[in-house]
Amino acid sequence: MSLLEYMQRIGQQARQASQVLARTQTSHKNNALEAIGQQIEQQRDQLLAANAKDLEAGKAKGLDTALLDRLALTDSRIANMTEGLRQMISLPDPVGEITNLSYRPSGIQVGKMRVPLGVVGIIYESRPNVTADAAGLCLKSGNASILRGGSEAINSNQAIAQCIYAGLTAAKLPSTAVQVIETTDRAAVGELIRMSEYVDVIIPRGGKGLIERVTNEACVSVIKHLDGICHTYIDDKADLEKAIAVAYNAKTQRYGTCNTMETLLVAQGIAAQVLPPLANKYQAAGVELRGCAATQAILPNIKAATDEDWHTEYLAPILSIKIIKDLDEAVEHIRQHGSQHTDAIITEDWHRARRFLTEVDSSSVMVNASTRFADGFEYGLGAEIGISTDKFHARGPVGLEGLTSQKFIVLGEGHIRQ
Amino acid sequence: MSLLEYMQRIGQQARQASQVLARTQTSHKNNALEAIGQQIEQQRDQLLAANAKDLEAGKAKGLDTALLDRLALTDSRIANMTEGLRQMISLPDPVGEITNLSYRPSGIQVGKMRVPLGVVGIIYESRPNVTADAAGLCLKSGNASILRGGSEAINSNQAIAQCIYAGLTAAKLPSTAVQVIETTDRAAVGELIRMSEYVDVIIPRGGKGLIERVTNEACVSVIKHLDGICHTYIDDKADLEKAIAVAYNAKTQRYGTCNTMETLLVAQGIAAQVLPPLANKYQAAGVELRGCAATQAILPNIKAATDEDWHTEYLAPILSIKIIKDLDEAVEHIRQHGSQHTDAIITEDWHRARRFLTEVDSSSVMVNASTRFADGFEYGLGAEIGISTDKFHARGPVGLEGLTSQKFIVLGEGHIRQ
Repeated sequence: MSLLEYMQRIGQQARQASQVLARTQTSHKNNALEAIGQQIEQQRDQLLAANAKDLEAGKAKGLDTALLDRLALTDSRIANMTEGLRQMISLPDPVGEITNLSYRPSGIQVGKMRVPLGVVGIIYESRPNVTADAAGLCLKSGNASILRGGSEAINSNQAIAQCIYAGLTAAKLPSTAVQVIETTDRAAVGELIRMSEYVDVIIPRGGKGLIERVTNEACVSVIKHLDGICHTYIDDKADLEKAIAVAYNAKTQRYGTCNTMETLLVAQGIAAQVLPPLANKYQAAGVELRGCAATQAILPNIKAATDEDWHTEYLAPILSIKIIKDLDEAVEHIRQHGSQHTDAIITEDWHRARRFLTEVDSSSVMVNASTRFADGFEYGLGAEIGISTDKFHARGPVGLEGLTSQKFIVLGEGHIRQ
Repeated sequence: MSLLEYMQRIGQQARQASQVLARTQTSHKNNALEAIGQQIEQQRDQLLAANAKDLEAGKAKGLDTALLDRLALTDSRIANMTEGLRQMISLPDPVGEITNLSYRPSGIQVGKMRVPLGVVGIIYESRPNVTADAAGLCLKSGNASILRGGSEAINSNQAIAQCIYAGLTAAKLPSTAVQVIETTDRAAVGELIRMSEYVDVIIPRGGKGLIERVTNEACVSVIKHLDGICHTYIDDKADLEKAIAVAYNAKTQRYGTCNTMETLLVAQGIAAQVLPPLANKYQAAGVELRGCAATQAILPNIKAATDEDWHTEYLAPILSIKIIKDLDEAVEHIRQHGSQHTDAIITEDWHRARRFLTEVDSSSVMVNASTRFADGFEYGLGAEIGISTDKFHARGPVGLEGLTSQKFIVLGEGHIRQ
């Protein structure tokens, strides 16, 4: 069987399974989530053995420590997979929800019913636990899924796939409701993102290279974010204590996440007060600071920021700092250099807070809160399959609801149009 | 200036105007709608003169009567444009609406704020009144728009564009908030649908050829429907009177619309009762009937339907009729031959109605109502810029809300993530 034939078969099977899943009741889907979790618990030794093979091959290939760490399965990571699936059981099922059902002057009732998207393709990199997470979220939202993990995790992913298939079968759902691609051939990704007949949406999770490739080549709709260049703007009407706490947290709570602040904007009226104590905290935490000339005048011991810094996602303990005139300049800087991911203002001024919320065109816009809050769990979505910086369909953290669509329903008693 | 430079300039201007429109207040947008309406009223003679040029050129080119009719502006069509704009004033502004703002365990408040998509490109064919309608809907929803009408309507569209620009200027909004492309060069469409930097969504309105071309070549997201192959399924538990009234209306209320029924499915248990009186009504209205063999056994004087009939959108007084076993076959027939536009069941059976609503994957699914109801006015959207049969973003009739997106907003008091 050629790669094309293999992928077409995967696609056809997913489409068929999606028709079954779309009408599967919540309790039935929950049973399958529980059964998959049990399989993962029971096959822990097999999962660790498969993972050991991947780790060995990874070491032989010279993968770096960070990547090997992401690749590794441990007892606690396996327990987390099961725990994650069990949490999905407790989430409300979005499918079938009917909203705004109301009478129209003609006498018909019109409303919207939430329905699955159909077939979701997910392309991800080294972390094998994404296999269980993504499969679970798609299953709960009534979507068939096609999962394509990193080639370095192929043995781990196939072992997890066996648990998923066994769980689906035990719960009497088609085992093709979730399909983990068996080949490491990169051309499989190319086929997946072009099968618009069989795939309704692609979610790439991983580095910028992967996401750019998928975006450029896909014929299927994509839910994605390319960059997370998040800003915090400290307004001159900010409360000093809040400003320091929030700006410190937004950078240092974790460095490698997409919602970590990368650039701090400070109003000139407050810079001399807020920057010295804040810089002390950053430097104590080992954060390298890079500033504009005005910032360097206040913090003489820091590096100069270059133009490139303003549009760089460091994903590291580095922060660029710019002193600006006012809110207008902050909004303009974010428009020019931001990635429409997450941006925050720190201010006690009602009017400016309201303007920032309206004028900053990002998937999450915050007042007096750390950009690190931008995620599905913190937002109460229960889980997250990704974050979208696009405006179409889903924006911001994408949970179960982002994996669904709404159709109109019309109820009548023989109504005809006049 | 080359075509590419011209289109790039249009795109840049639209992007800039969209930033102004996104923060323009409702009353200000309404003033602009009123001013545009007034301009159209005042420049009626100029509009008729420009339209006369198009009609003359059309006749010289040998355009058919139907096309010339769509192209023609009359006093009443001009009054309708103004009336349409005034109705938009009374529609609620979707922009800025904040929903689901609620406290999270961390203490932050999280909600969603509705925002414009940004820049909307609309590609349409002969009817010049679409220029005013589309401009108005985009303006009310806070989007800049780039309009590209049919080349046969170029003089009419440019005359309407002058009214729009004058109205925008009178209301102190950038005249580039709406831009009507001045060239009839078809390559302009190619540029427009590839300017993903400047254009957020494309809405093609017109024949299948146009929509296929746009879908295949666009880099920008597209809101569209390709076909409207709508079904009515008369279940054997249908009320005879309702079945006849609804099925007759769904075909004959208008023939050329996308929500007109093209195929009637009839359960075998009721076919002999319902088909003869229904066929009489259709034939009296001049509808040509084409049936499967079982249908021909009941209605011996009708043509045989071929396989092609089941996936043909006639847009004409022709109806294909198929007798099937039951609901399962109806759902399967619609899955195979439908276009995910609008499908209806006629039944008094609770269980079957509920199953049809769940299992038919179309943008509108109806019980005991005519498919002709599937439009923005009937659904209470106030107006409609198109109908989407995609699952992504907008599905079914697309009104003001379909021209918007939602961003997350987070409100805190110095909250940091633990």
